[in-house]
Amino acid sequence: MNSIPFEQVTLRRGLLSEKERLSRRKTIPAVYHQFSLSGRIGAFAFQWKEGKPKQPHFFWDSDVAKWIEGAAYSMRLQPSAGLEKKIDALVENIEKHQREDGYFNIYHTVCEPGTEWKNRDHHELYCAGHLLEGAIAYFETTGKRQFLSCMEKYMAYIREVFMVKKSAAFSTPGHQEIELALMRLYRLTKDKSALELARFFIEQRGSNEKDMHIGFGWLYAQDDHPIREMREAKGHAVRALYYYCSVADLAAETKDEALLETCRAIFKDIVTHKMYITGGLGFPHGEAFSQPDYLPSDTSYCETCASIAMVYFCARMLNIEKQSCYADVIERELYNGVISGLSLSGDAFFYENPLGIHKTARAAAGQVVRYSAITERVENFSCSCCPPNLCRFLPSLGSLVYSREGNDLYVHQYADSCYEGDGMRVSLSTAYPTNGEITLATEGVSRLFIRIPAWCEDAFVLDAPYTMENGYAVIDKPTGEVHLSLQIKPVLMAARASVADCAGRVAVMRGPVVYCVEEVDNGADLDALYLSSHFRARVRKENAFGSLPVLLTTGYRRRASEALYERADRAEFDETEIRLIPYACFANRGPSDMLVWMNVK
Amino acid sequence: MNSIPFEQVTLRRGLLSEKERLSRRKTIPAVYHQFSLSGRIGAFAFQWKEGKPKQPHFFWDSDVAKWIEGAAYSMRLQPSAGLEKKIDALVENIEKHQREDGYFNIYHTVCEPGTEWKNRDHHELYCAGHLLEGAIAYFETTGKRQFLSCMEKYMAYIREVFMVKKSAAFSTPGHQEIELALMRLYRLTKDKSALELARFFIEQRGSNEKDMHIGFGWLYAQDDHPIREMREAKGHAVRALYYYCSVADLAAETKDEALLETCRAIFKDIVTHKMYITGGLGFPHGEAFSQPDYLPSDTSYCETCASIAMVYFCARMLNIEKQSCYADVIERELYNGVISGLSLSGDAFFYENPLGIHKTARAAAGQVVRYSAITERVENFSCSCCPPNLCRFLPSLGSLVYSREGNDLYVHQYADSCYEGDGMRVSLSTAYPTNGEITLATEGVSRLFIRIPAWCEDAFVLDAPYTMENGYAVIDKPTGEVHLSLQIKPVLMAARASVADCAGRVAVMRGPVVYCVEEVDNGADLDALYLSSHFRARVRKENAFGSLPVLLTTGYRRRASEALYERADRAEFDETEIRLIPYACFANRGPSDMLVWMNVK
Repeated sequence: MNSIPFEQVTLRRGLLSEKERLSRRKTIPAVYHQFSLSGRIGAFAFQWKEGKPKQPHFFWDSDVAKWIEGAAYSMRLQPSAGLEKKIDALVENIEKHQREDGYFNIYHTVCEPGTEWKNRDHHELYCAGHLLEGAIAYFETTGKRQFLSCMEKYMAYIREVFMVKKSAAFSTPGHQEIELALMRLYRLTKDKSALELARFFIEQRGSNEKDMHIGFGWLYAQDDHPIREMREAKGHAVRALYYYCSVADLAAETKDEALLETCRAIFKDIVTHKMYITGGLGFPHGEAFSQPDYLPSDTSYCETCASIAMVYFCARMLNIEKQSCYADVIERELYNGVISGLSLSGDAFFYENPLGIHKTARAAAGQVVRYSAITERVENFSCSCCPPNLCRFLPSLGSLVYSREGNDLYVHQYADSCYEGDGMRVSLSTAYPTNGEITLATEGVSRLFIRIPAWCEDAFVLDAPYTMENGYAVIDKPTGEVHLSLQIKPVLMAARASVADCAGRVAVMRGPVVYCVEEVDNGADLDALYLSSHFRARVRKENAFGSLPVLLTTGYRRRASEALYERADRAEFDETEIRLIPYACFANRGPSDMLVWMNVK
Repeated sequence: MNSIPFEQVTLRRGLLSEKERLSRRKTIPAVYHQFSLSGRIGAFAFQWKEGKPKQPHFFWDSDVAKWIEGAAYSMRLQPSAGLEKKIDALVENIEKHQREDGYFNIYHTVCEPGTEWKNRDHHELYCAGHLLEGAIAYFETTGKRQFLSCMEKYMAYIREVFMVKKSAAFSTPGHQEIELALMRLYRLTKDKSALELARFFIEQRGSNEKDMHIGFGWLYAQDDHPIREMREAKGHAVRALYYYCSVADLAAETKDEALLETCRAIFKDIVTHKMYITGGLGFPHGEAFSQPDYLPSDTSYCETCASIAMVYFCARMLNIEKQSCYADVIERELYNGVISGLSLSGDAFFYENPLGIHKTARAAAGQVVRYSAITERVENFSCSCCPPNLCRFLPSLGSLVYSREGNDLYVHQYADSCYEGDGMRVSLSTAYPTNGEITLATEGVSRLFIRIPAWCEDAFVLDAPYTMENGYAVIDKPTGEVHLSLQIKPVLMAARASVADCAGRVAVMRGPVVYCVEEVDNGADLDALYLSSHFRARVRKENAFGSLPVLLTTGYRRRASEALYERADRAEFDETEIRLIPYACFANRGPSDMLVWMNVK
């Protein structure tokens, strides 16, 4: 089973459509602008000299490569001579400065010449992987082969260095990414050497004594055990998830059931023990997965890239396994943890997507307090991996909606959209998630699989008999329109009791959307707010947050006590209206405290 | 008004008596033993050479000095030829190795000769202060003047270096302590030069550009502003509180109302914004006070030394101000945050006294998680300031019970005890805090002041007419016995709503005693336990915890859910018995999770 590619899916309206358009209109140009200002674009001229400003960083190649990939996707939806010219200029430079033997890396050529493959922390293979992905995307969009040829040459060289001569100081990447890029290359060209190199990096990992201790240690880089022995998600979340993507690809291509079992176990470990309710992943120390059920809100990290990588992993598993649980997680990410990484204006970014902002807990001048995320999105970071990741992720959102296997059609996400191709026609009409009414008109579909989301307790398929299979309602030979009605109402959610930080607290969800309270709506001291345990909320559409409505509910505010500690039965509460906004939209109205996990009484 | 010195107060039974005896029987010998093993005692022979083990640390002088002070107090209660011999041997070495000009510091003589007064972080003046306190204590106990004379000579030298020649690289201590020691010297000898030097260090601080940035910065060392401008407790908690002690002393001796106002404001800031319910103070980064109302349990620091220093500060303010609020805080510290620093066996120590232990949140091999305190007390630390601080604090507990001003007697703490002296006789009989019945028999008292604790809502003074004054019941010319009846019952306490970490949670107190739950009694996953909002508890005396009873209550345990997140109204609870033990006694039965702030429903 394969996803229907985004360029064949028209997103007509709703959140995914809004974000896809915003990324093309605002995000991609804005990131290019920032990358020009910061020197990332100019670095491809290989002109930097000691003492000059804007020294290239060893991960800059990958930032620009991801932007190229995103721009290529954007061009696939809407051709752009401007973008093409920008990419061609970059490719020109890449070809010009690629070494005779195939090596390409700005930092190790202009800043530290002669030091290639010496430092496993220096992201060379990670950069190579992103460049390869960019080259594939650009080739697939334009048919121009120049960039792809450069990267094929680079891969041949890497294969020689790592598989044949074994001359590098390490034998697998410090930061995974090239493995999944090589699998993409293999799928494009069927070149077995790409598959072999990917397999080499995947299988070598965790078993080679040459691979020195990097960063925070072996576990941090998923290098503590060979992949076949792994059953838990550990270490740096983005490294881990890019790795798992490639493992799923390899398992699918080689029908390797043992590798697939590893992927299943790791997925289960993440969703039952290591994922924030927003889909966020990871903890500040090492940007890493932590202990099971250890999900503190105030020191949540939830890197935008990690959520994107989780979607990539789930999309692979979804096509392999055909189980709705993977699409459920994709939905959680899409409506919360990924989208929160982008400002409503489309040009400012979070690297981290915390589950709470508590300005008081942040450092005042000279005061030392614990780590806190920033309170407002910014246009660029010195380590700016997340913005270009959104550049490539958002234009390709359409590919998450449907999968196809022969004439069987799977509907994973409820985005108002249409698709036509290969004897099949689909039109999905909905205002989801404003409401849960979905109408599907199909032609040429043999079996129609419609995901019934796990969060929904009352789902009805109308106008057609159906059976349930792996979380999907299956309709045989659908004719005319099929209606799906999902009851969407605001509910209070609780985390498992062992998630200490959330114990006794609740979060509000409405369908797939997690809500939060902001100071700007509810005044300071959000911890003084208590939702009612008889929670009911009114849904109000406001233009400020696109297609996502706000919620209004009557709760309580605890009065401030003069004493730091008082008898609990002396605490006084006043009824108050509480305004909740979609978590994905927080921090768009100036610095403000924010809270997802709220008190309840 | 002055405290009645501990050597004139007999603690007959109850918690304070138990800890005073334990310290003499176990703690003081155990710390000496550990200090011998670690090389701290041997270091006084000045024999260490480069390459040899057990290199003296620059704070070792202070560790041993505090032990001498404690041993001297112990000898005052029970003469000991053994302790005297040990101290004399140390004093012999001190005299022998003191430099001609008066300088005495092991580290800067044997490890880094010629570097004295160059590094403000090197605790030279801090060590000097503790040595002076030890010398005063030993002189007051034995009348032997040798040690005190050495230290007077050292102080004269310090005065020359800092006040006259100003030849040091800094002008005030990196770590305060000498200021309060000098005030003690002044009170003992009435030597004005000690007062002047103390005043110099106190008033110079925060205003001298020569004082380089130290440790975490100026604020960290209370060096950001002159003391007269300060109104909040900031920076390293122990440095701050030793400093405030000396400021209170100076204010009292010089009748300086402005300095006293500073002390009042800082005290109020601490108790209304910066003190854990156990009396604990400070946060791991920098062992420091943090932002107002920022009191996270899991990263609480609550150094034993900080609680001890807080008692010292409050005892000074109490005698100046005669307000019960200071004695209330001393009580909170005594029954919770100080005593928790010592194992029930008397020979193992906490440096930090966290408000929760969550073993899952601690680092597994190679895993990176946030800072956590240790889970069991140990016999010695590399930075072992807390054990000898308990050595001097515990034998002198008796001095916290009464103050006297002429023939007026103040009863601050309800310890079963007696005192006789200077025409006055008192006998206080009680099983407090097991119950709140207190009988006072006095002779020769003109006015009897009995503290009514702020935590008590039902206090009755029987058998005598009384008025209330500054939190004390005042009985004019008491005759026969006076009975005080304090209703002590277990209650649920709440923190102010803005203490985010405690919002929605409750802590159990019974009288002055804070309770906690431990895994060893209640099973794992303490966050699954919910106290009933209709909380009632049975009190049970168990020998395991000395004079402090345990509490039994019926509450709920939330069932473990398979899903990480579920609808809050689907959560299932089972009734369960919950056993609470005194916080001060936690971590005495092997590694165990522990929790003070619990869920409630």
